[in-house]
Amino acid sequence: MHILVLGGAGMVGRKFIERLAHDGQLGGKAIDKVTAQDVVAASAPAATPFTFDAVVSDISVEGGVDDLIALRPDLIVHLAAIVSGEAEADFDKGYRINLDGSRHLFDAIRKVGGGYKPRVVFTSSIAVFGAPFHDKIEDEFFTTPLTSYGTQKAIGELLLSDYTRRGFFDGVGIRLPTVCVRPGKPNKAASGFFSNIIREPLNGEEAVLPVSDQVRHWHASPRSAVGFLIHAATMDTNAIGPRRNLTMPGYSATVAEQIESLRKVAGETVVKRIKRVPDPVIDGIVAGWPRNFNAVRSVQLGFKAEASFEEIIRVHIDDELGGNFVK
Amino acid sequence: MHILVLGGAGMVGRKFIERLAHDGQLGGKAIDKVTAQDVVAASAPAATPFTFDAVVSDISVEGGVDDLIALRPDLIVHLAAIVSGEAEADFDKGYRINLDGSRHLFDAIRKVGGGYKPRVVFTSSIAVFGAPFHDKIEDEFFTTPLTSYGTQKAIGELLLSDYTRRGFFDGVGIRLPTVCVRPGKPNKAASGFFSNIIREPLNGEEAVLPVSDQVRHWHASPRSAVGFLIHAATMDTNAIGPRRNLTMPGYSATVAEQIESLRKVAGETVVKRIKRVPDPVIDGIVAGWPRNFNAVRSVQLGFKAEASFEEIIRVHIDDELGGNFVK
Repeated sequence: MHILVLGGAGMVGRKFIERLAHDGQLGGKAIDKVTAQDVVAASAPAATPFTFDAVVSDISVEGGVDDLIALRPDLIVHLAAIVSGEAEADFDKGYRINLDGSRHLFDAIRKVGGGYKPRVVFTSSIAVFGAPFHDKIEDEFFTTPLTSYGTQKAIGELLLSDYTRRGFFDGVGIRLPTVCVRPGKPNKAASGFFSNIIREPLNGEEAVLPVSDQVRHWHASPRSAVGFLIHAATMDTNAIGPRRNLTMPGYSATVAEQIESLRKVAGETVVKRIKRVPDPVIDGIVAGWPRNFNAVRSVQLGFKAEASFEEIIRVHIDDELGGNFVK
Repeated sequence: MHILVLGGAGMVGRKFIERLAHDGQLGGKAIDKVTAQDVVAASAPAATPFTFDAVVSDISVEGGVDDLIALRPDLIVHLAAIVSGEAEADFDKGYRINLDGSRHLFDAIRKVGGGYKPRVVFTSSIAVFGAPFHDKIEDEFFTTPLTSYGTQKAIGELLLSDYTRRGFFDGVGIRLPTVCVRPGKPNKAASGFFSNIIREPLNGEEAVLPVSDQVRHWHASPRSAVGFLIHAATMDTNAIGPRRNLTMPGYSATVAEQIESLRKVAGETVVKRIKRVPDPVIDGIVAGWPRNFNAVRSVQLGFKAEASFEEIIRVHIDDELGGNFVK
């Protein structure tokens, strides 16, 4: 089979492709080829049992994906997007990439015709929800985003469902929790601290905690995020029905519980590397974010995430640190 | 004030403009000018205390509304759309008019700048909901449309909220119930019979009832629909908050209750003009439609509809038949 990953140079895209390279197959079908599209060249995994192509292109340009879709990939994983902060700072760019880009992709697939009907996995976000919420957001709760990014993702979900209903492709939309612990360097995203306060102390570095201990948020590991993609790509979609967009499972933890889990897994010395520097701006932003979900459908449909924050930390230590950390 | 009505030649648009001509003012402000845009020329009301312009144009064309928006209307009422059946039959046309058209409008307003921030009233539809439902659909129920038309309206709602949040205009989205009794001739819309079985018998004509007596649906009169527009155009939008799309109040009636109401208002002879000709296709379509709502927010915000189906019939007799019907 041929798999096309749009946004293949990003963190989740790279991890997904690495997993494909490791497995060599997907859902029991041998993988012949993986094409990783992005605005920068995606690096190839260390060893690939398949042909790997990195394509640099821009899905926001009319016709920018047509060549890739003309190859009739069997599976299309659509991760391409600009992030929340950038979509808020640059209104036109956000709509161009996150809305027009998705529409170009969906229309390119529709126009191939001749019975072509690939599986399309679209990564949406819990940003489709906007406060005020119920304590645990149910699967039938309405999407009233409070960011342009969340709006663009919610529109992508609607298009995915309609194009699927019309038979143009077989779509599954997955709303990712905040991916934690995010590997790499600390970044300036407002959500960055959720990962920073775990990753940096495990590296022997200090990390800044800008919000209160009582802030609650919804997490899943990068390994779970890749698992969601794999399951969405291979599951029997007859079981989903017409409501194609699913809130993925996750683990809801307060910052206090994150810290307590770090203490249990790594000890007090590591925890002491967290410095409290309250930032009312970040506090205000985070106050509008979802805290907890009752994600019944996705669990019933076989999606799996971590059952504790300790598990999320252990996944990070295993997958990113080779099982070790700075004590 | 200058009012622009997009889709001004349609039934609701015409009735809204007639009401403006009757009132001469809106929310206490004198009306200087009404511009009615549509793909066909809107006819002028009998007597207008304001300048009336009918403009023939196509909002689905890039730049197709820019000239109208450059006049900086104080209020924009956006009724322009192709209907559900046509959007389903012609995929491209539906997205071009109902999605691109709305986006062209919203972007044209955004690009005027210089502090221009008109009130925008967008007519959405209960078609944003798709079965299965709760018996009474709550204000926080999710939008999972089962038609391309409903998808396009749901996307319009998301754009309206985001453009409002960003300060480009002051938007209110109103989800209209099925407008009943619809004046004019019987049409082939699947929902036509809800009006046909009242209007035609009152005209001395036979009407076909294609579904069971137990079918339940959500109705408001054309007079109420115009009232919703007036209220959305004049209300204090600070009271709404960021969730700008509201399910309008209506009256939920079974077909049996519709017929019983007709009997009470007009008598048995009139009711006997309804002929039962079951049509499984229409039955199937109607089964996927919303039946009842718990529209709390719109009522709290001052929107008003009829409290009985008898009242809906009496509004029709008063407004369309000069108080008389064929006994």
